Amino acid sequence: MKVFDTHIHSEGRSVEDLEEMARGGVYKAVTCAFYPIVPEYPETLLDHFRKLTEFEVERGRSAGMEILPALGVHPRCIPPRYEVVIGRLEEFECVAFGEIGLETGSEVEVDVFVEQLKLAMKMDKPCIIHTPKRNKVEITGKILKILEDLGFPEDLAVVDHATEDTVEEILKAGYFAGLTVQKGKLSPEEVERIVSKYGFDRFVINSDTGFDRAEKLATVKAIERLGFDRNDLEKLAFKNAERIFQM
Amino acid sequence: MKVFDTHIHSEGRSVEDLEEMARGGVYKAVTCAFYPIVPEYPETLLDHFRKLTEFEVERGRSAGMEILPALGVHPRCIPPRYEVVIGRLEEFECVAFGEIGLETGSEVEVDVFVEQLKLAMKMDKPCIIHTPKRNKVEITGKILKILEDLGFPEDLAVVDHATEDTVEEILKAGYFAGLTVQKGKLSPEEVERIVSKYGFDRFVINSDTGFDRAEKLATVKAIERLGFDRNDLEKLAFKNAERIFQM
Repeated sequence: MKVFDTHIHSEGRSVEDLEEMARGGVYKAVTCAFYPIVPEYPETLLDHFRKLTEFEVERGRSAGMEILPALGVHPRCIPPRYEVVIGRLEEFECVAFGEIGLETGSEVEVDVFVEQLKLAMKMDKPCIIHTPKRNKVEITGKILKILEDLGFPEDLAVVDHATEDTVEEILKAGYFAGLTVQKGKLSPEEVERIVSKYGFDRFVINSDTGFDRAEKLATVKAIERLGFDRNDLEKLAFKNAERIFQM
Repeated sequence: MKVFDTHIHSEGRSVEDLEEMARGGVYKAVTCAFYPIVPEYPETLLDHFRKLTEFEVERGRSAGMEILPALGVHPRCIPPRYEVVIGRLEEFECVAFGEIGLETGSEVEVDVFVEQLKLAMKMDKPCIIHTPKRNKVEITGKILKILEDLGFPEDLAVVDHATEDTVEEILKAGYFAGLTVQKGKLSPEEVERIVSKYGFDRFVINSDTGFDRAEKLATVKAIERLGFDRNDLEKLAFKNAERIFQM
């Protein structure tokens, strides 16, 4: 089964790792912007974006994987003068803004998130929206309220790292939910329970493979064990993602 | 045989790769500063330095490998206003300046190199000095002339990526030579011929493992196949490096 992994951080992976993922079925992946320390300078993120769109895309190509960059200011690495970054986000080619979202839900995080959502609405750009491990239900609620208040288009938001506790609310609000199969996030069994209950139309799947230890082929393995109609499995594996990100 | 790999770019490697290196004998490695595109902003390198000294050191620790950062402006990624970077290099903790050196030998490269060497002399800081693949003999000669003109201390320079064509000149000038065992650099057989001829006292060994495909345990394998006295092998494997970088 070929899989479009909608959320990785390719920078945390060697070129041999990317080759292994490509050989295992991950033909395409969105690599999300993230800087693993809080940058002291907004300029660092501008060069980071160019690194993703040039170097990482080329590294993916040489490994046999199509890497599509998602760019933006992650809530865990907001630099001083972040408005400089958001003000120049339009200049870079990317398939989505991401990952953006909330971690603690602080005032500055909300400001950074909202400004990026407004730009996304203007540009008709999909957004990959991070939800945190801590206070997941509460912060997901806060994110959905922000999206609703903005009248954010339903087909432009993937609310990511969804769980059995948050998926219903995300789907009710009309957005896509991202299922992250990884230790500490969803198990393959949880993915199975979720799609058994809610179907396949509003989900994408990802591994969040990056700087931490990871099961690189978690997405492929999670889908291959599911006993559903092939057409449904393909929606989860790549068809929904192709529709969202290939506009 | 335990090995101190004196030149890697840990950022190009997953945490599992670092674990594999540590398990294979690479108990310690110098990770050298390098940004894989030319940064548009000097600030990018300042955050890069902090990333190496904080995030990469911690990532190494979690993989069982002591990662020691070498910081500096690499000749292939000189940003505009590079004097901002060099002017703040003293603020960061590192075991060496590196990798610094020359790629094409252009005027700006020479200026960046010389300014960093002068600072290293002032701070008594070892330097890991890159020599290029193209025009290696000529550019190595230019590097040695610069070191000589500055009266650069013999024990503070590792002239890296040495080959059978350049090693004699490096040793005659009194400096350490770095032997990089990797496809496209030295083969284990070349390493053997070099140490058979020139002994073990003025060499360190490294793999340059980073963003490209690499043999991660190239250093360990190159040393284990050598039929020399254990004390000599240990000089190449870690004793010389411990002396140079643990000051």
